Amino acid sequence: MASVATLGSHCALQVLKGAKDEGLKTLLVCEKKRERLYKRFDFIDELILVDAFEEVLDKKCTTILEKNNSVLIPHGTLIAQMTTKQIESIKIPVFGNKWILRWESDRKLKEQLMIESKLNVPKSIPHHKKINRLTIAKRHGAAGGKGYFLTTSEKDYIKKRNILVKQGLIKGDSDLYLQEYVIGVLAYLQFFYSPLTGNLEFFGVDKRHESDIEGLARIPAPQQMGMDYISSFNVIGNSPMVLRESLLDEVYQMGERFVSASKRLVKPGMNGPFCIEGVYDQDGKFWSFEFSARIVAGTNIYMDGSPYSTLIHDVPMSMGRRIAKEIKTAAKSKKLEKITT
Amino acid sequence: MASVATLGSHCALQVLKGAKDEGLKTLLVCEKKRERLYKRFDFIDELILVDAFEEVLDKKCTTILEKNNSVLIPHGTLIAQMTTKQIESIKIPVFGNKWILRWESDRKLKEQLMIESKLNVPKSIPHHKKINRLTIAKRHGAAGGKGYFLTTSEKDYIKKRNILVKQGLIKGDSDLYLQEYVIGVLAYLQFFYSPLTGNLEFFGVDKRHESDIEGLARIPAPQQMGMDYISSFNVIGNSPMVLRESLLDEVYQMGERFVSASKRLVKPGMNGPFCIEGVYDQDGKFWSFEFSARIVAGTNIYMDGSPYSTLIHDVPMSMGRRIAKEIKTAAKSKKLEKITT
Amino acid sequence: MASVATLGSHCALQVLKGAKDEGLKTLLVCEKKRERLYKRFDFIDELILVDAFEEVLDKKCTTILEKNNSVLIPHGTLIAQMTTKQIESIKIPVFGNKWILRWESDRKLKEQLMIESKLNVPKSIPHHKKINRLTIAKRHGAAGGKGYFLTTSEKDYIKKRNILVKQGLIKGDSDLYLQEYVIGVLAYLQFFYSPLTGNLEFFGVDKRHESDIEGLARIPAPQQMGMDYISSFNVIGNSPMVLRESLLDEVYQMGERFVSASKRLVKPGMNGPFCIEGVYDQDGKFWSFEFSARIVAGTNIYMDGSPYSTLIHDVPMSMGRRIAKEIKTAAKSKKLEKITT
Repeated sequence: MASVATLGSHCALQVLKGAKDEGLKTLLVCEKKRERLYKRFDFIDELILVDAFEEVLDKKCTTILEKNNSVLIPHGTLIAQMTTKQIESIKIPVFGNKWILRWESDRKLKEQLMIESKLNVPKSIPHHKKINRLTIAKRHGAAGGKGYFLTTSEKDYIKKRNILVKQGLIKGDSDLYLQEYVIGVLAYLQFFYSPLTGNLEFFGVDKRHESDIEGLARIPAPQQMGMDYISSFNVIGNSPMVLRESLLDEVYQMGERFVSASKRLVKPGMNGPFCIEGVYDQDGKFWSFEFSARIVAGTNIYMDGSPYSTLIHDVPMSMGRRIAKEIKTAAKSKKLEKITT
Repeated sequence: MASVATLGSHCALQVLKGAKDEGLKTLLVCEKKRERLYKRFDFIDELILVDAFEEVLDKKCTTILEKNNSVLIPHGTLIAQMTTKQIESIKIPVFGNKWILRWESDRKLKEQLMIESKLNVPKSIPHHKKINRLTIAKRHGAAGGKGYFLTTSEKDYIKKRNILVKQGLIKGDSDLYLQEYVIGVLAYLQFFYSPLTGNLEFFGVDKRHESDIEGLARIPAPQQMGMDYISSFNVIGNSPMVLRESLLDEVYQMGERFVSASKRLVKPGMNGPFCIEGVYDQDGKFWSFEFSARIVAGTNIYMDGSPYSTLIHDVPMSMGRRIAKEIKTAAKSKKLEKITT
Repeated sequence: MASVATLGSHCALQVLKGAKDEGLKTLLVCEKKRERLYKRFDFIDELILVDAFEEVLDKKCTTILEKNNSVLIPHGTLIAQMTTKQIESIKIPVFGNKWILRWESDRKLKEQLMIESKLNVPKSIPHHKKINRLTIAKRHGAAGGKGYFLTTSEKDYIKKRNILVKQGLIKGDSDLYLQEYVIGVLAYLQFFYSPLTGNLEFFGVDKRHESDIEGLARIPAPQQMGMDYISSFNVIGNSPMVLRESLLDEVYQMGERFVSASKRLVKPGMNGPFCIEGVYDQDGKFWSFEFSARIVAGTNIYMDGSPYSTLIHDVPMSMGRRIAKEIKTAAKSKKLEKITT
């Protein structure tokens, strides 16, 4: 039987707990400094201790994982800490589609896939001279939201950019991507697509808690006016949410368009968990500004199932457990190659 | 045995999943454009496809529902898309009290029922000349919060009203209802009253996520000052909350006063699910600005039971399942007429 | 066998429901005015009616509780409504460490224990002349957040202090404690330490909803500028959250340092539930501004288990139930004195 392996961070606890609930062996590639944390949990069968996560590419790790018929579950930490080339060179089976992770990391490819999926994407702004409405400046790559800021004018942009340069967070304009900012309710839409059944499952939606922008809401405007403040969007955690039911049809359609576009653009397509990230504006229209082509950390809030997963599954089903269930089903019918790359 | 039917929107998934969990047959009156969505869910036994929800009044629908001994569960979409007269003319049994839905839709009757229930209601402001403190302008009817705005002066009110008129959202002052705005923690209190047991059950409390007012919290004040912004309160979703336990006694008392006043004012009273909606001010005093005399969509967050329902029920009990349980109990003892109108 | 008793408020429902789930008898010391509320719940075996909670010290109460081999679960209401001396004089066994409750109530001792635990504590500001950045003024004692306010200058401080004096909430400067205010994501970290197993369990994290500061987020800045507003932080309720997994190692380390420092400073140490309360800044660094040396009301959101408790326990485990489980285990092995004071 197959086993489940992942890197020790992001959603490792959920993924391995879910695998254990499905009766699979669990392995964790774990930085030595995190050993203390992860050995607290009984459902982790084996810790493979490393100094850095890229050692998952080394023979020592690979041998252990191969011996255990492990399927590696990729998540945000894998993407943040390894290059696309490194990820694509992983030898053991990767759950879902490892080739699509490049499309998540590269802003141009990302935008292409979103447009091919017919998602509404807020306009990008080609140059800071063109800033004339509420605009967000985002750093390229997986910066986790640190140093992102809002601005409404070129003058304000330059002031804030200069502060970030001084702080050493960016080198200059070329490190920043400018996009029209849509005000509304942020929503992170979690999906699972099974190539075995051909079904898309909407698993839930979460809200992100970002620091320190979230704290701004508690500072009275007169106090804010006197502060020389640059916001930041560093993700700290997540909380649960459900959507107005009349929005669900479009949610499913967005998910299906994304699955369909992925099949065309990057074979074998968007298998397994993914997330479309955006904001509902005042007309209830959804604007997507990002996607994640693998499990997102927001699923951690549903460690024991979500309001939506209970509509589909008879047992408490986290996204981690859903992944394990897919692996078990595929292994039984000798179709592991259909769900891994 | 009775079956459960509802319209395909709002909380239909919760209601029919709950009915299935109680072993009842489930029917959905479903707009053709939503067929794709609802046929994804196994717990829906029968889809009755329609072009518009008001066809629920037609012979075709009625015949099917009667043949199945269906009880129709009313929700927000029924109220938003059908007139009070249409609702009152529904021939199949309606769960709860269909006559009270008129009191929810009509702002004058609504205020009367709240005052008879001895709820604290924020003062209404008779004319925009009288605006001298923080005031909310709400559109009449079930507009869902689109075009609601805050203001502090007549001058600002006129400016915003004119923009809404230009946008075609309202015709003029007569479309707006002015009410003192209480700052605090918003809370939507969900109840179920059973005429079979005579017991009131507090099922939980949720928070609403409204667009785009919620997004405002993430815009630094200096950026807000430069924006020509009119807020909107379009409900996008809900999230869970619990209340400080010392507030629960008053919560139950408010619920009981509401049940009691409803019995006097609109027979047979407030049977089944309802919601009292308001805000806790800085003294922990609750101000009610609305009620819903039927299941609210905020119960969707508790698809698998709420922190409070676990105190009362042995199995995971959503509001939808609670309704089905009541129908089952009534049907067994031939008392369906006690819980329907 | 032991039974479980507590005062009727704060988290009594959770605590007694959890005890019942573990098969223990449950007793509630209940103010007469709250009898109506608590007798709604079947899992409460016995109500001991009192006029005021301090009657728990009287012979009548003590006799009943002793006869039932009750362990008293202390919570926030006990601390708010009884003096430290009264609490220390309680004759029946108190779960956890009643001596540490003094350290929670006294701001100097509190700061000492936090510093000995090597927590990052925001700087206190010795005098309002020294206010030159965003500062929070807190009232001493368990005021529940009413009358707390933010300020950025001495001038603004004096204006707001004078208003509070006029309102009768404070007498003067000596009633206020000034502390640097850290902007970010607020998080209340819930732990359980078992002296029986020597293990620390991270049970979850919640967000607080405070009035009326939370409502401020929905007032556009231009409207805020015109308001003569003093914020307040009166806790109304709680909602769930999970943390970014890379923060968990430090969370556990903070908890262990707190347990360890408590063992040194106040014997027998921090047994049972406790909470470290603070804020994650934009670098993901946690600043602690408070702790609670007993169960917190934020655990009420996890009445049926939390995302983190499902990683540790096989059944839905609230903090209340965890306490009861500890009592049951200790009673069976005749070690009740190890978990009570």
